[in-house]
Amino acid sequence: MSTGKGAGTTTGTTTGTSTGTRAGKAAGEGPVTVLGLGAMGGALAGALVDAGYATTVWNRSPGKADGLVARGAHGAATAEEAVRSGGPVVVCLLDHASVHEVLDPLAGDLAGRPVVNVTTTSPAQSRELAAWAAAHGVAYLDGGVMAVPAMIGHPGASVLYSGSPAVFEEHRALLERWGDASWFGEDAGLASLYDLALLAGMYVMFAGFLHGAAMVAPAGVTAAEFARRAAPWLTAMTAGFAGFAEVVDGGDYTVPGQQSLEFSDLGDILAAGAEQGVADDAVAMVQRLIGRQIDAGHGKEGFARIFESIRNPA
Amino acid sequence: MSTGKGAGTTTGTTTGTSTGTRAGKAAGEGPVTVLGLGAMGGALAGALVDAGYATTVWNRSPGKADGLVARGAHGAATAEEAVRSGGPVVVCLLDHASVHEVLDPLAGDLAGRPVVNVTTTSPAQSRELAAWAAAHGVAYLDGGVMAVPAMIGHPGASVLYSGSPAVFEEHRALLERWGDASWFGEDAGLASLYDLALLAGMYVMFAGFLHGAAMVAPAGVTAAEFARRAAPWLTAMTAGFAGFAEVVDGGDYTVPGQQSLEFSDLGDILAAGAEQGVADDAVAMVQRLIGRQIDAGHGKEGFARIFESIRNPA
Ligand SMILES: NC(=O)c1ccc[n+]([C@@H]2O[C@H](COP(=O)([O-])OP(=O)(O)OC[C@H]3O[C@@H](n4cnc5c(N)ncnc54)[C@H](OP(=O)(O)O)[C@@H]3O)[C@@H](O)[C@H]2O)c1
Ligand SMILES: NC(=O)c1ccc[n+]([C@@H]2O[C@H](COP(=O)([O-])OP(=O)(O)OC[C@H]3O[C@@H](n4cnc5c(N)ncnc54)[C@H](OP(=O)(O)O)[C@@H]3O)[C@@H](O)[C@H]2O)c1
Repeated sequence: MSTGKGAGTTTGTTTGTSTGTRAGKAAGEGPVTVLGLGAMGGALAGALVDAGYATTVWNRSPGKADGLVARGAHGAATAEEAVRSGGPVVVCLLDHASVHEVLDPLAGDLAGRPVVNVTTTSPAQSRELAAWAAAHGVAYLDGGVMAVPAMIGHPGASVLYSGSPAVFEEHRALLERWGDASWFGEDAGLASLYDLALLAGMYVMFAGFLHGAAMVAPAGVTAAEFARRAAPWLTAMTAGFAGFAEVVDGGDYTVPGQQSLEFSDLGDILAAGAEQGVADDAVAMVQRLIGRQIDAGHGKEGFARIFESIRNPA
Repeated sequence: MSTGKGAGTTTGTTTGTSTGTRAGKAAGEGPVTVLGLGAMGGALAGALVDAGYATTVWNRSPGKADGLVARGAHGAATAEEAVRSGGPVVVCLLDHASVHEVLDPLAGDLAGRPVVNVTTTSPAQSRELAAWAAAHGVAYLDGGVMAVPAMIGHPGASVLYSGSPAVFEEHRALLERWGDASWFGEDAGLASLYDLALLAGMYVMFAGFLHGAAMVAPAGVTAAEFARRAAPWLTAMTAGFAGFAEVVDGGDYTVPGQQSLEFSDLGDILAAGAEQGVADDAVAMVQRLIGRQIDAGHGKEGFARIFESIRNPA
């Protein structure tokens, strides 16, 4: 799971929550197998080799294991041979289909073994793989990497997990070699869903930032100048999430102290954007979410109510 | 100018840039006049009174000056009387129309005087007021308050200014009694435009956060849990703004090291959202901005190119 796309956009990503005590762990536990040595699989395997784990590696096309073998990994000629070395099996392939292509023939060998699959898959695909694993007696943990390969093993890297709590707990020290490790629940699709939800927030925020930059550009403000102000401004505004969340979770959008939907009319921002000649997509989107609640008679209630516009599509 | 709406949503807002040395300033310079003692005007006047400025105050409806007078302000019966006490004239009324209603009859008295108008107006309205002021020999500074009244004079409050650089420089110590003070340029509309652009970014980010919260909600994740992860995640992702800005300002979206528009396809996020039954507005908006550039043949170029989708509406 994990699209990895968001993390690929920037460097230094983190979800800010750490479960780990990486630094204090004894090195050299093992064995462990890594299947798939692309950009990400290679980085994950490298971090384990560096930490002293007895790491067996395999990649479909030959050659990609060479550097790892030089660093101390054991190179296996086939995936079947690779998983025979014992310990957890880390899977980092291209997509859902390639995971089945590689694991299906190994189902017998994997029975009773822990599999940690950090390949990007959708929530539904993660659940399907968990069901496949359960049918073959395989303990399955799904992971979503919130980092680019260069960040693996360095501060800021974070991997979201869901699925088998036993695999997560037993191999936590190993997982924390890659970065912060968080487990979300037994539903194997949860980490992927969380990952995609965080990426949704990120892409939407990026669009909002670029919208603002486009608004001030005709006045001669560079995007860099705008970024210097927008980054701390939006950072400060994330402090508002907890307040919105409290209202959403409470389910009562009439609690006092909130900015109302009517007061949140974005007409002035849209008018200024039109004056500047910019496309209205980003702001009009929010205005539409607000408008749906006002049209439904909730104009005096809090802004957080746009959550209902999203949760219950028209 | 300034809508003030965004700041009203949360507490603890700041743009993160300080020009000030408030703490070290001598108290009690003056005189200064404040016209308009609503929630915001009252807070601005109060901060000046507390700092020892000889503050003359006026409000259309009587009664609102009483508390300030008790704290040491001088109460004027009319706006005309209020501006006669000399010093800069701070204007904090409801809107553009009310500013003209109050200032037009005072044009003669204001000639040669500095006027600092922090009433919310659009960029065009701010420019109109600057032209009106210029025609009457009034030195005009436009301000946008990025704070709620309770924050005025406390850490986190910020006011954006544009218009007369002389007024800004000469009265900077006074302006910094309210919060961080930044000047953006001589175009009086610039602060308002900046303010609206930052608010655009904020509202879009809020919608993105609530979209993510709606995606995970059916899996039993509370909005509060999601907020605890989304706030540090989006904060970390603001670090990407500078990189996007560099590409936008450079004007070459083919520079290496960027995530391409094609790779940024949000189909997986949209599919997961559809599975969860949420409305697609927020993510579909970004996908549309991406799609416009891909359709125009720029799929291999960087994600920052959606700036062009915004700057040049179809
Ligand atoms: N790179 C990132 O920034 C990043 C971030 C987060 C998550 N991820 C996720 O991590 C996973 C791996 O990404 P990556 O960057 O390492 O990709 P990559 O460099 O393209 O590597 C893909 C790997 O999958 C293997 N593979 C593909 N199809 C296969 C098949 N049918 N049978 C066997 N092996 C197959 C490839 O083997 P060959 O060498 O034989 O082609 C290669 O080892 C992806 O799901 C990605 O979304 C990546
Ligand atoms: N409150 C915030 O959080 C906040 C944040 C940022 C910016 N702002 C901006 O600050 C400005 C003032 O906001 P506020 O919160 O102080 O509003 P407010 O409490 O409603 O006060 C409005 C003020 O304007 C006066 N007024 C309205 N029409 C007038 C007219 N025709 N002639 C003379 N006086 C008139 C009112 O006088 P009466 O008492 O006689 O009605 C009152 O003093 C607005 O432009 C607002 O957008 C507010």
